[in-house]
Amino acid sequence: MTPLPGSIDTEAVIAAIEPAKDVDGLHPWSQGKLLRGLPTFLPATPAGVQQLLIRSGHPPDGKHVVICGRSGLVGRPLAALLLQKQRGANATVTVCHTGTADLASMTRQADILVAAMGRARSITADMVREGAVVIDVGTNSVPDATRKSGQRLVGDVDYDAVREKAAAITPVPGGVGPMTRAMLLVNTVLAAEGGPG
Amino acid sequence: MTPLPGSIDTEAVIAAIEPAKDVDGLHPWSQGKLLRGLPTFLPATPAGVQQLLIRSGHPPDGKHVVICGRSGLVGRPLAALLLQKQRGANATVTVCHTGTADLASMTRQADILVAAMGRARSITADMVREGAVVIDVGTNSVPDATRKSGQRLVGDVDYDAVREKAAAITPVPGGVGPMTRAMLLVNTVLAAEGGPG
Repeated sequence: MTPLPGSIDTEAVIAAIEPAKDVDGLHPWSQGKLLRGLPTFLPATPAGVQQLLIRSGHPPDGKHVVICGRSGLVGRPLAALLLQKQRGANATVTVCHTGTADLASMTRQADILVAAMGRARSITADMVREGAVVIDVGTNSVPDATRKSGQRLVGDVDYDAVREKAAAITPVPGGVGPMTRAMLLVNTVLAAEGGPG
Repeated sequence: MTPLPGSIDTEAVIAAIEPAKDVDGLHPWSQGKLLRGLPTFLPATPAGVQQLLIRSGHPPDGKHVVICGRSGLVGRPLAALLLQKQRGANATVTVCHTGTADLASMTRQADILVAAMGRARSITADMVREGAVVIDVGTNSVPDATRKSGQRLVGDVDYDAVREKAAAITPVPGGVGPMTRAMLLVNTVLAAEGGPG
């Protein structure tokens, strides 16, 4: 649903959604249930990241997950999701952001590093521990004269350099994006079947 | 309001509260607004911890806050609160819990350490960095033959040893508890005046 045009009050639109149909998982009611650990529609990108980790054989359980970025769409709900006391979660979670004093000292501690700041290729190889699992949620347009459009999509991670150190890494495009769409469909099916809880 | 007797479904009771009167800040609607960074009734203990930090001259801004414990009453909402991009918050936040692999290696990184696990005196001096600010949210009854009641209240921090290293530390009883009650009164006044946002 988001982003909406700047002239529209996104929070007012979200608050107007019937919680039983909130397949984006963005309504405060849904997010409050998430924070409280109750069954709810999970926001699609955080749920996609969780499923990527579980299904690729890198479950977050007992791991230190460092999330860069505290957006309402990704960073904060993902932290709430991965903290929960249940299988496929149960991670120690650190959330970093523009106010973090020494970002690299935090990211280098990550067993699982999630980049969701929206700054092109800002996670460089020196910021990643050998053998870390790296999930790139960023989607940034950068100029590219070789493309007809004059631009191309890159993530928040310096992919070519970081892939040499990472045990596993998601590409952009093609990594988290398709998972987001899949999880939105999961929520839509859940809603049709009577809701998540 | 909590804890309720075990025979009562706490979540059902919370969900039955009118959000406009939710002065405990525990309703999913309130907690979802908190997670999304919208004006809402803040849960009293997390709000009390934040005010303690600000008013004692140890604002969390730019600091690394390590929270031990992920309860719905303290750990998770406190993380959501201190992460927010605003003055009196803006901290890098790590949440640790029973699933954390090496708790001491996390707690020793804390500029501000919040103990909210509910285990008597489990944060020992070797787990605390020299000069850290320590907030003890724990309230545990331990046997004490010198008291008429046969017991006394202690926190989650080994106070006598940790106070030697900490720049500042809250006692139990008398630290966070009175702040919790004060913040509940703040919310009650806010509700009477038409709500928080």
